[in-house]
Amino acid sequence: MTDEIQTVTAAVLVIGDEILSGRTKDKNLGYIAEYLSRVGVDVREARVVPDLEEEIVPALNALRARYDYVFTTGGIGPTHDDITADCVAKAFGVPIGEDPRIIEMMLQRYAPGELTPARRRMARVPQGGELVDNPVSKLPGFKIGNVIVMAGVPSVMQAMLDHAVTLIRTGSPMRVQTIEAGAIPEGRYGDALAQVAKRHENVIIGSYPSFADGKFKNQIVVRGKDETEVDQARVAVEAMLAAFAG
Amino acid sequence: MTDEIQTVTAAVLVIGDEILSGRTKDKNLGYIAEYLSRVGVDVREARVVPDLEEEIVPALNALRARYDYVFTTGGIGPTHDDITADCVAKAFGVPIGEDPRIIEMMLQRYAPGELTPARRRMARVPQGGELVDNPVSKLPGFKIGNVIVMAGVPSVMQAMLDHAVTLIRTGSPMRVQTIEAGAIPEGRYGDALAQVAKRHENVIIGSYPSFADGKFKNQIVVRGKDETEVDQARVAVEAMLAAFAG
Repeated sequence: MTDEIQTVTAAVLVIGDEILSGRTKDKNLGYIAEYLSRVGVDVREARVVPDLEEEIVPALNALRARYDYVFTTGGIGPTHDDITADCVAKAFGVPIGEDPRIIEMMLQRYAPGELTPARRRMARVPQGGELVDNPVSKLPGFKIGNVIVMAGVPSVMQAMLDHAVTLIRTGSPMRVQTIEAGAIPEGRYGDALAQVAKRHENVIIGSYPSFADGKFKNQIVVRGKDETEVDQARVAVEAMLAAFAG
Repeated sequence: MTDEIQTVTAAVLVIGDEILSGRTKDKNLGYIAEYLSRVGVDVREARVVPDLEEEIVPALNALRARYDYVFTTGGIGPTHDDITADCVAKAFGVPIGEDPRIIEMMLQRYAPGELTPARRRMARVPQGGELVDNPVSKLPGFKIGNVIVMAGVPSVMQAMLDHAVTLIRTGSPMRVQTIEAGAIPEGRYGDALAQVAKRHENVIIGSYPSFADGKFKNQIVVRGKDETEVDQARVAVEAMLAAFAG
């Protein structure tokens, strides 16, 4: 490994009863993980918690103490079940109030009579929070300390993430090489792959089966921050597989 | 609430680097959550951890102490990165060894020379584990204590889950009513909905926007174990919405 490799870690905290009930299938974790991996931030853990302060606050505190950044999704709308901003304020032990910049945005959008208390909830930002732009539906997320708070609706979250990554420190991107093992069973190459993995300790090697039409198909993935080491491991995996393909 | 309502809780522990890197988009949590909700098991939390013993063991111990059941997915294949069974044994503090029933299945499937050490890894079950059938690709998952260990490949996991739910205690199913709010903005009905939620404390009311073609569309979901209470809350939500639709 070269000296210049920078590791930046993150966790994702998905907030919402609808994910835990199965009503909504989460699409944000996969998107965030892939996106952050590309910009050199390693997602190390994810949690899904319900819309309950007593669950959100401890989960957030556990994750923000442990990783460089925490990205939350969900719970920042105008309804009573949107309690993320208040929970984040509680986790940081700071007051929360209406952000005048957001009220200003709302005044441009809504007639004075339409600026309901529910809508004003969406202007609440914990003290010290920095706004995260939302080009899709305007009302922003925020960043406070190492926590980035984003919407749950995927298109809105994705737009916020584009801005959020400009506000954080990023590391060396993960280099990823995928090798097709095709129909060679994992059980045949597993022992040899374990040997390859042992000889290439600075990269992570995974073997991933998928199952369709009654058949397994396997891919081997090599991941690491050092391009040379990843390449060397890929070559070793390919040579290992060639012995089984014959 | 009637006396007979039974609450059974669960957590889902998704194990795998490939989910945290974004390479594989998890489809298991949503499926398990929806399935368990139908049979009266409430998923209260989910976590995603990498293929590292020092992450899997504490996460499993935290979750199994807190919920009636923990369902894990992933990490039970034949390759070096499949360490779930060993981690579960460690979490429970029990020995792990080859289960003769699984070896028997393997001998029926593989020629003796094909029963590689990698494949034998898939026969490892912690002491006291009960097998969970896998009609898709034969090799089973297992249940030990309140932990159910399933495959990561969705079709295999789904088949295992069918059997796993016969091995657990289930509770009263969640009653769910979905009310279409259509294009009425959340910010308009948010305050009134909060009042409805306050008057119907034994049910959970959520408001869920989705965004497509530049427009938000909202649904309000009422969930609870008592059908009458859920119905009453639904009627209240509909009456509340009617005032805004005019």
